[in-house]
Amino acid sequence: MWDRFLRACRREPVDATPVWFMRQAGRYMPEYRKIRERFTLLEICKQPELATEVTLQPVLAHGVDAAILFADILLPLEPMGAPFEFVAGEGPRIFEPVRDRKGVERLRVIDPEEDLAYVMQAIRGIRRELDGKTPLIGFAGAPFTLASYLIEGGKSSQFIKTKSLMYGEPELWGQLMTKLSEVTRLYLLAQVAAGAQALQVFDSWVGQLSAADYREFIQPYLKPVFDALKQTKVPVIHFGTDTSTLLEIQKETGGDVIGADWRIPLDVVRRRLGSDVAIQGNLDPHLLNAPRERLHAGVRAVLREAGSAPGHIFNLGHGIMPHTPPAAVKEVTELVHEWTAH
Amino acid sequence: MWDRFLRACRREPVDATPVWFMRQAGRYMPEYRKIRERFTLLEICKQPELATEVTLQPVLAHGVDAAILFADILLPLEPMGAPFEFVAGEGPRIFEPVRDRKGVERLRVIDPEEDLAYVMQAIRGIRRELDGKTPLIGFAGAPFTLASYLIEGGKSSQFIKTKSLMYGEPELWGQLMTKLSEVTRLYLLAQVAAGAQALQVFDSWVGQLSAADYREFIQPYLKPVFDALKQTKVPVIHFGTDTSTLLEIQKETGGDVIGADWRIPLDVVRRRLGSDVAIQGNLDPHLLNAPRERLHAGVRAVLREAGSAPGHIFNLGHGIMPHTPPAAVKEVTELVHEWTAH
Repeated sequence: MWDRFLRACRREPVDATPVWFMRQAGRYMPEYRKIRERFTLLEICKQPELATEVTLQPVLAHGVDAAILFADILLPLEPMGAPFEFVAGEGPRIFEPVRDRKGVERLRVIDPEEDLAYVMQAIRGIRRELDGKTPLIGFAGAPFTLASYLIEGGKSSQFIKTKSLMYGEPELWGQLMTKLSEVTRLYLLAQVAAGAQALQVFDSWVGQLSAADYREFIQPYLKPVFDALKQTKVPVIHFGTDTSTLLEIQKETGGDVIGADWRIPLDVVRRRLGSDVAIQGNLDPHLLNAPRERLHAGVRAVLREAGSAPGHIFNLGHGIMPHTPPAAVKEVTELVHEWTAH
Repeated sequence: MWDRFLRACRREPVDATPVWFMRQAGRYMPEYRKIRERFTLLEICKQPELATEVTLQPVLAHGVDAAILFADILLPLEPMGAPFEFVAGEGPRIFEPVRDRKGVERLRVIDPEEDLAYVMQAIRGIRRELDGKTPLIGFAGAPFTLASYLIEGGKSSQFIKTKSLMYGEPELWGQLMTKLSEVTRLYLLAQVAAGAQALQVFDSWVGQLSAADYREFIQPYLKPVFDALKQTKVPVIHFGTDTSTLLEIQKETGGDVIGADWRIPLDVVRRRLGSDVAIQGNLDPHLLNAPRERLHAGVRAVLREAGSAPGHIFNLGHGIMPHTPPAAVKEVTELVHEWTAH
């Protein structure tokens, strides 16, 4: 069933539970590493034929039920006026972190059709190649997660500068988040116009905040993004890690599907969120490196906890890690299909 | 009331809510930085007069209701056979990480009275100086948190090698955790014998695990530690971060007080854990750097959520950060006392 993923997003009955993996295209695949020998990550993102090829790799290799655009959540930052590079073994480095009024004012709200034309071309190319056989997910980083990279200048574990700006200059925070909200909204709408059939909003690091802070500093800027996407009729997945204290407020903020990491059993997620939203997750990505028996037990536990009501999309609790054996990814895809087929 | 902290641990009525801060002695204090100009962190830990002086600094400066031994959770690793150093800006580095059977077998179960005699001397010295006016908390890292440092070789964000050993070689994991459990137990018992009047078990990183993994890989080794401490009659605080999916199983594992980070409102903690355990926490440490009004609102929220039932110890949700103004720490201590006095 080609649209099993889209049907599950809408909580319609499916012939088997759909499966895809966050970071399903990437370093763990030899096909990808071969391309990376010749091109940087950003070069792949910016050349639609390469982005198309890489996006298709896991679809061809593993038979997953959705393709996800090969891109990076930080891509909009460059045309906004905050260019960056990827440093090996370290992650992204923003050349000029944004930490004051001048920094925020310098950021421009982009026109994604023009400023990220290469993404839209990739989406059109991928749709052509997929030829209606597998749906394509587009995605973007949520305003908080983008803000944290902009302010910290890269990856962070404690988000000291981010919270300092948030608590210390709430008005400036609001200006920054408003710009990022606008960019995220426009970028996702453009992806749908180009052909994305579903979307995922990555608010990967928002689990650093308490629910009270979420309500004050995040929701006012994130809700408009989800609200604007409703008109597209495209299902939207709302994902974060470490969100066990935020699930209800995330649902209230928006999304047809709520993604949870491996810390929250999906039966708890179901109980807390009710049956009017689909759920996605949530195998611990480390289990893909575990012995077979333990991996199988982990997959079975996720399916058991997800239950039999419609509206479960099988995924990891976070992205695939670089040292994952591709065979395990394929095996899990097949097992989930086999064990849930009816 | 000198024993307000100990009384709160036992859920007895108090004249005001007791306050102490994780990492209340440390880099944010000018008095401490002055000593660090001449001595490394490990040198301070190993010279009882210096450890005593540093332990007393926040008691004298801020009037907190408990002193906590100045030490590092990794100290037992050196006599166990896994020496380490602290690298500026990076954290601890274990010279020879433990990743295989040989590594685990090489680790010895220490005799803390002898192998960590300097800690016991510091405890005796601090007790003398405190002279019954303020109680002293001893502490240790929990087996999982120690194991993660041993296996990763330092700080980690994803715990890839730790989970790989845990899932991949559960028997070897059990051997390692058994040794660490034994060491933690002996070390804490020795601290009580030397004069510690309360204990905190830091399982700082255990929130990386699902509850199912906690039950299989953590509890069998951690519960014996808490069980053994019962005989001492000394109250024990069980602390971790990111534990909102683990609270109940942590309580089941042991401790008179459960510590929570800022992500879980304390009224939720109370509701989930019931009234037969005390709670500690949980101001976001970043708020100590926030404007006054916001800091005050944060403190008020913690007190409101903690409610009026006995058994709340005010603390942060994690350690004080290096750039914290000491005046804010003193102010929070005084505000909590003032706002809860009766």
